[in-house]
Amino acid sequence: MATTEQAGSKEQAKITLHWLEESRSHRIVWLLEELGLEYDLKVYYRTKERLAPPELKEVHPLGKSPVLTIQAPGMEKPKVLVESAFIIEYLLDYYGQQLVPRRYPDGKDAQIGQETEEWTRYRVYMHYAEGSMMPPLTAKLISSGIRSAPLPFFLKPITRSIADQIDGTFNKILAGHFEYLESQIASSPQNGQFLCGPELTGADIMMIFPLDGSQSRAGATADKYPKLNAYIDRIKERPAYQKAIKLVEDATGKPFKAIVG
Amino acid sequence: MATTEQAGSKEQAKITLHWLEESRSHRIVWLLEELGLEYDLKVYYRTKERLAPPELKEVHPLGKSPVLTIQAPGMEKPKVLVESAFIIEYLLDYYGQQLVPRRYPDGKDAQIGQETEEWTRYRVYMHYAEGSMMPPLTAKLISSGIRSAPLPFFLKPITRSIADQIDGTFNKILAGHFEYLESQIASSPQNGQFLCGPELTGADIMMIFPLDGSQSRAGATADKYPKLNAYIDRIKERPAYQKAIKLVEDATGKPFKAIVG
Repeated sequence: MATTEQAGSKEQAKITLHWLEESRSHRIVWLLEELGLEYDLKVYYRTKERLAPPELKEVHPLGKSPVLTIQAPGMEKPKVLVESAFIIEYLLDYYGQQLVPRRYPDGKDAQIGQETEEWTRYRVYMHYAEGSMMPPLTAKLISSGIRSAPLPFFLKPITRSIADQIDGTFNKILAGHFEYLESQIASSPQNGQFLCGPELTGADIMMIFPLDGSQSRAGATADKYPKLNAYIDRIKERPAYQKAIKLVEDATGKPFKAIVG
Repeated sequence: MATTEQAGSKEQAKITLHWLEESRSHRIVWLLEELGLEYDLKVYYRTKERLAPPELKEVHPLGKSPVLTIQAPGMEKPKVLVESAFIIEYLLDYYGQQLVPRRYPDGKDAQIGQETEEWTRYRVYMHYAEGSMMPPLTAKLISSGIRSAPLPFFLKPITRSIADQIDGTFNKILAGHFEYLESQIASSPQNGQFLCGPELTGADIMMIFPLDGSQSRAGATADKYPKLNAYIDRIKERPAYQKAIKLVEDATGKPFKAIVG
């Protein structure tokens, strides 16, 4: 249970975050802390096979995490939200417009093509995180599983060669993403320190999960991508991010791990 | 070049779709045809290694497809859009509100939790397609690559066993998705025939890519998932979908293939 004050004077819906260790759900704890919302944190642990536990299916049939349930005044039953990006968008719609860039510049009409660079980046990254960046990271997860499979030593060269082939393709794709993101941080609008400009946005919250994986197991190191790493460090130093980690460490009694493995 | 009439009376921006064979970009041709928009179709072919060609990097540094460029009246340079879901959202904002469900029911205030089931599904599926459904399909693509790798026959059992292990995990996850989608079609709002109700939405356009892959190489067969397959068939019978296929077949001189491989 995170006890923080309510957002503004608006009557707040009752929010429950179904949080699974080492999963995409951690970014939602961070978001809830950034917004200073009141919520219940329900903790789930992975099975021996590192999968989501069956109890999550009682919350949503797909049995994944994050799931956010919202019980607003006057509603018969709670609304059940899935997909990190949808949860972020939904919370920002009602409680966090300060994390959404303005779509059109001051004095410009709402016309096609006139959107700000800040807004355009924001919308792109809300999809890019899972649509473009996660697929090669998923491939890396598979290749590292192949590499560490228990096998007699004389078979190891074969599995290693398969893993090397997978990595050969996907490391190149990942390097392209890292270079691109390095240049995007360098060209952040208004000399900003975040992905979409000078202010934190929902897109930074969406991107932290693949960036964590990139840093810890896909070679996005500080010597090669200094601006990208400095950006990730800035994110991790934020009080709300730190508080999110402390909350789940207190709730689980275990050190926080950002990604599965 | 697709020559169709302009959308309504609104002055249309000049649209160019950078289309790569056997890729996510095909859904955007379908969308442009559903909306009856005028656009240029620029065709790219995969390399021998089945990767995107380097020319795509001249359009956008990530070198992926789809990319949509939009040159609106009064703009100095074209706006370059990436990520299928963002391209769909952007086109619907300006030219396709008929493919977006209403957010609140008639007579209801714009309040948290009051959103229609149609709208909620629409927003979830715009993210679910890449966020939840593509990762296990990416894993299947990798396992099928391992299975078909050229190797001496006496090593084949080893690679087969690795591929079997990957499939063992991800086939179960995929079956969960297929069962869920089967039930979602069965419970489509207002007895609808589409994912989000009685009308086609941007979410159906987003979902066709993973559904094509599910049908052709991940075991989502009609005997097991009849409603889901009937839904996919309904999509594929739409005149705009058929026209999109004919357009790219005429442009490439090759039979259309929905997915890489």
